[in-house]
Amino acid sequence: MKCRVCREKAAIRIRRHNAAFCRQHLIEHLQRQVARAIEDYQMFTPEERLLLGVSGGKDSLSLWDMLTDLGYRVDGVYLHLGIGDYSSRGKACSERFAEERGLQLRIVDLPGDYGFSVPEAARATRRNPCSACGLSKRYILNEAAVAGGYDALVMGHNLDDEAATLFGNLVNWNVEYLARQRPVLPASGNGFVRKVKPLIRVAERETAAYAVLKGIEYEVEECPMVAGNTINRIKEWLTTLEQESPGLKQQFLFGFLERAAGGFAVGTEPELRACEQCGRPTTAEMCAFCRLQRRTLESLAGERGDG
Amino acid sequence: MKCRVCREKAAIRIRRHNAAFCRQHLIEHLQRQVARAIEDYQMFTPEERLLLGVSGGKDSLSLWDMLTDLGYRVDGVYLHLGIGDYSSRGKACSERFAEERGLQLRIVDLPGDYGFSVPEAARATRRNPCSACGLSKRYILNEAAVAGGYDALVMGHNLDDEAATLFGNLVNWNVEYLARQRPVLPASGNGFVRKVKPLIRVAERETAAYAVLKGIEYEVEECPMVAGNTINRIKEWLTTLEQESPGLKQQFLFGFLERAAGGFAVGTEPELRACEQCGRPTTAEMCAFCRLQRRTLESLAGERGDG
Repeated sequence: MKCRVCREKAAIRIRRHNAAFCRQHLIEHLQRQVARAIEDYQMFTPEERLLLGVSGGKDSLSLWDMLTDLGYRVDGVYLHLGIGDYSSRGKACSERFAEERGLQLRIVDLPGDYGFSVPEAARATRRNPCSACGLSKRYILNEAAVAGGYDALVMGHNLDDEAATLFGNLVNWNVEYLARQRPVLPASGNGFVRKVKPLIRVAERETAAYAVLKGIEYEVEECPMVAGNTINRIKEWLTTLEQESPGLKQQFLFGFLERAAGGFAVGTEPELRACEQCGRPTTAEMCAFCRLQRRTLESLAGERGDG
Repeated sequence: MKCRVCREKAAIRIRRHNAAFCRQHLIEHLQRQVARAIEDYQMFTPEERLLLGVSGGKDSLSLWDMLTDLGYRVDGVYLHLGIGDYSSRGKACSERFAEERGLQLRIVDLPGDYGFSVPEAARATRRNPCSACGLSKRYILNEAAVAGGYDALVMGHNLDDEAATLFGNLVNWNVEYLARQRPVLPASGNGFVRKVKPLIRVAERETAAYAVLKGIEYEVEECPMVAGNTINRIKEWLTTLEQESPGLKQQFLFGFLERAAGGFAVGTEPELRACEQCGRPTTAEMCAFCRLQRRTLESLAGERGDG
């Protein structure tokens, strides 16, 4: 197995591109995929200030590394979710990465700044922890980007993530979610910053290979709350299909983006008002995050007996 | 576990309807599902003459039985595909069923009438046998319906079949196939009869239960050529998901039909001309079935040394 570019011994084979690459040319290949996604979808320019959501895992740290190599100005934001050792290790990996490269990392602490952890929110609301986590991330990372005056919030979702999410949304034909599943969600005048996903052309095993080849130390363990998570199981199954039909995930995701996504354009914007707690736009009296926070804090107070 | 209707001992539980039924009430429940599909999608009326594609399996024979009980006038057409014992047994089951009930069954014999079998076509064209079989069925059953002056061709695709096919079409985002995945395809003036699928509200295990409870002898073995077939494997996986989320398949299929299918409406009709061999409308000089037939017959002649 030889590198497609230099014919030296290859380090990895990428079947859906029918190609193999040595260390150096894999790094170049993956950075080119990211550059192409940024260009194809006009995600951002080198002049803009970017904030990347960083978990300490392979995807976000590899993406931070790639974007920096490509000449973009990217700060990171780490959201501590209060999931025991997993959160502590993710934070440590993120801090070490930033420090070694002289990059700026902001830390937001869900328990410290908002008074509750993801496990507590899941327990209090009897919600799936992944759903409580996703809601908190969407809210807080957007807050951090707006507060810091960034032009765009960058997320490390890879090809596998996006293909699995697409399948999950198709099972329910949730047309609103389908309409929002784009590589770029433009800023909306009322408090939501532009959101972009430059890793959508790169598979999960490729970001892992990138991290290893670049000597990036990342949190290898999966989140302990994710076991049995539907999206994860869809991901595993799509990976089984991909092994027999290399390119299937890419075809599935990009077929949707090119041939179908336009049909799910959001119709009329719902009427929004200011959340009575945080002031962000919402369709209800209180936004979903503030409701989650209130219910969790009430439940924690009840447990402590001071409710 | 008690029957939802009469509180007697139930014979089967249907989790997605959160219900169980005794023998008699299961039969009524399933016939009601078929009646509802016919009505919801205005498939046909009791005055119309219907031709049902019959394989000898549980789906087509159960459907024939249901439609007859519901008062429709349905003849059957069995297409002998030349797949060894499997085809012979399917034919025998179909003939016995029709004879016992005084129903009319037409037989079309692919090897006898068209000169080749499905395994031969698959070998000659290096095509997946399921694809050669599907093409032959679509062509010949339509021919039989047109020649017999029927108002509609009825197919026995069940909920599991349709959900798996939908997923297969979504993986490729084949918008033309997605546009045609409807419970009713209206007749087109140029030689295609109306095509309807009254079983789409009934799951595979339910048609099997129906056949057993009604004492219908059907071909139990799966087609031997179907092993490893993609649609079959998608079906198995959707069944795994269904076990955890009862109703998932139905939600997936009907969510598509209700909220998305309209977005895949076929745009401009392609320009059609008469196939130079059979005269049916086609976009090429010769239609896909006649091309399959010609290639297979040429290859068979070559094998026999008279090419």
